[in-house]
Amino acid sequence: MGTLWIRHADVIALDAAGTIHHDADLLIVDGRIAAIGRLPDDTQADEVIDAAGHAALPGFFNAHTHAPMTFERGWAEDLPFPRWLNEKIWVAESALTPDDVYWGAALAACEMIRSGTVAFNDHYFYMDRVAEVVEQSGMKAQLTWCTFGIGDDKEIGPGADAQLAFSWEWRGAADGRIRTCLGPHSPYVCPPAFLSRVVDLAAQHDLPIHLHVAESREQVDNSRQRHGMTPVEQLNALGVFDHPTIAAHCLAVTGEDRAILAEKGVFVVRTPVTYMKLAMPVNHVTDLAAAGISLALGSDGPASNATMDMLDILRQQVWLEKYLREDPEALPGDTALRMATQTGARAMGFGESGVLAEGRPADLILIDLDRPHLRPRHDLIANLVHSAQGADVTHVIADGRLLMRDRELLTLDEERILYEAEQRAFRMVNQNMNQVRQYEA
Amino acid sequence: MGTLWIRHADVIALDAAGTIHHDADLLIVDGRIAAIGRLPDDTQADEVIDAAGHAALPGFFNAHTHAPMTFERGWAEDLPFPRWLNEKIWVAESALTPDDVYWGAALAACEMIRSGTVAFNDHYFYMDRVAEVVEQSGMKAQLTWCTFGIGDDKEIGPGADAQLAFSWEWRGAADGRIRTCLGPHSPYVCPPAFLSRVVDLAAQHDLPIHLHVAESREQVDNSRQRHGMTPVEQLNALGVFDHPTIAAHCLAVTGEDRAILAEKGVFVVRTPVTYMKLAMPVNHVTDLAAAGISLALGSDGPASNATMDMLDILRQQVWLEKYLREDPEALPGDTALRMATQTGARAMGFGESGVLAEGRPADLILIDLDRPHLRPRHDLIANLVHSAQGADVTHVIADGRLLMRDRELLTLDEERILYEAEQRAFRMVNQNMNQVRQYEA
Repeated sequence: MGTLWIRHADVIALDAAGTIHHDADLLIVDGRIAAIGRLPDDTQADEVIDAAGHAALPGFFNAHTHAPMTFERGWAEDLPFPRWLNEKIWVAESALTPDDVYWGAALAACEMIRSGTVAFNDHYFYMDRVAEVVEQSGMKAQLTWCTFGIGDDKEIGPGADAQLAFSWEWRGAADGRIRTCLGPHSPYVCPPAFLSRVVDLAAQHDLPIHLHVAESREQVDNSRQRHGMTPVEQLNALGVFDHPTIAAHCLAVTGEDRAILAEKGVFVVRTPVTYMKLAMPVNHVTDLAAAGISLALGSDGPASNATMDMLDILRQQVWLEKYLREDPEALPGDTALRMATQTGARAMGFGESGVLAEGRPADLILIDLDRPHLRPRHDLIANLVHSAQGADVTHVIADGRLLMRDRELLTLDEERILYEAEQRAFRMVNQNMNQVRQYEA
Repeated sequence: MGTLWIRHADVIALDAAGTIHHDADLLIVDGRIAAIGRLPDDTQADEVIDAAGHAALPGFFNAHTHAPMTFERGWAEDLPFPRWLNEKIWVAESALTPDDVYWGAALAACEMIRSGTVAFNDHYFYMDRVAEVVEQSGMKAQLTWCTFGIGDDKEIGPGADAQLAFSWEWRGAADGRIRTCLGPHSPYVCPPAFLSRVVDLAAQHDLPIHLHVAESREQVDNSRQRHGMTPVEQLNALGVFDHPTIAAHCLAVTGEDRAILAEKGVFVVRTPVTYMKLAMPVNHVTDLAAAGISLALGSDGPASNATMDMLDILRQQVWLEKYLREDPEALPGDTALRMATQTGARAMGFGESGVLAEGRPADLILIDLDRPHLRPRHDLIANLVHSAQGADVTHVIADGRLLMRDRELLTLDEERILYEAEQRAFRMVNQNMNQVRQYEA
């Protein structure tokens, strides 16, 4: 790995004190930050980066996504959710092959690295192929093979045994850059017996659980009718929350639900662009935070979110919460920046990351500040939160390794990936839509 | 001016039929589009641009802004509106000099060109200095010197005579690239007698009027108490709408107001990022559109919006309307793209622009589509609306003249502008905050 010396950056530590080291150096040794400050001119390093005019900050942790859904970006626009899902998304996905997943995730990795994301929390199918992308790209990831239970007993979806086994067979792969979860899709498509089986496996293999929870009031009403409990109460009763849990969304929860989520240390991940684009009513994240719940941010799948740009997503969370609360003081930018970095890192089992300090893993990015939309610099954090765009990210470093230098991807063959992904995306949607047309004819 | 030949672009015409010319050429002669289609290889042109892998579309028309407020970007964050305005914005602006306005507008011009804006509708002070920036940058603009009336009679703010005269002295400057309006700030700070004087001047000089209207329910309530009418009713009664009018915001209007605005052909400009960031409750733009009102989009000042990136703003409008209506079918992306281009152009008196067709002015941009976040290309419009970022814009052309080529600004000295603007922004806020501290001590 060797040493990397970053010179003259404005280092946004994102520590508890909110430290910004102006015009400081960062020395990275064997994947970790060895020093922050002014280093002597005769410091030795394998590689030196002049970062004058740049901010250094923790890389982004995209804490809930379905990366291979890049294939369906722009494929289902301006549609109500049931038609979006049933007529477009599931139809396209029914022809998905493991190779498609590989190339879709590779396309996502190009996009994520270019916009400053060092790690992603992926919940999809054929996850061994996503793991390959993580290995090759140098990114970090927590990977979850999405599983479905069927019927009302312990029956599980076809192939679920192998899908569940992914999580103990792959954890720790890629020099520890890959972590894994068990991934029942959600309480509304997984019967209680299946969820109980997942809880047993979580105990047996000491694994976290990543699932979708309470995306709408309708789901909560259905759960009450069917189980006499809210989804959060049901998951708690089944013992899910006795294991580290990432609960995506939680858009409709009660005060009791909030108390459970806080007490059990469940990480709630919000994907605000999806909610706006698909018009899904949300509750206030500041209420969840006030209850003591740890909140992270994610892109969701690119079929709904469109991009995987965490700068877009964190500013969307800030604006949406201020707007919904009718309070411009709600959710300051600094809070959202921490959601998108350190809280995501903790949710994904990389709890040392998300802060730039000596001894911490070198998971960080550089952002070019010499851009007209980032001037003047009255408030560096505000400029990053409200004005920076993905393309302002110039360098991305994960575990001390450069994944992008001066906007050039170093670990992935971007030109080939763009070509392969595009061809496969077209094949996937055309093949299936032809099948649908034949069936309807 | 000569000829410019753009080759192999996907040309998004934004005409009534929604035409996209795939892999087409654009020939520009003397500032206008002379041909769209495949041109013979021996076509003669002074400059040739290979636009393979790029979209060509109409440049953006930012229909309501206060460009020199770049100086206050990041200067007043996470504050309620009265404190934002009284304690921060007006304090900083009280030391504003004409030179500051020049450099602040120049910084804005760099940012606007880089993100694909060809024209802006500016409402601020010392507008002769903004006009200089328009002349030098090659952009187009409609400029309005913001004027205030005081007292309850025909008294006007100090210097208002010269401010009003700006609009007839400068219109048509810069080879017709500059248009002008009369600009009373708003009905809530301008007494009726002053507004009537503006109406007389509009008739005398045949000028449009650009002002702020109905930004909150409180303003509407106050207007009813004071004048027995809503702001829209009052402006109509005073004859303002008998002249072409650009009404920024209109966030709180009645059904009767909507009918007036539609009947009188008033252009309403929305600045959705400001509303979210400052938590200003809004009505539905789709209700305004359904009433027959022409809607354009703007950035507002960078002190509230943070950026001037019209791609950010148009997608924000789409997402906010879908979310507020709880309807993902509301406000399709194509509609917002037209708001940000052709309706803005009409509002600013450049009604021939905003459509790429033979004979139209060559006000257009190229966007690099070979970016991972813009693949695959199931839906080119959706990709641009939901995923493109300002930095994807590679070329900007106004009246047939290249203002940016391959992301290099050709008309402005960006390095010097960034330096000067930053120094002046710091001086402005520091000087004033020191005065405030001395006064309070």
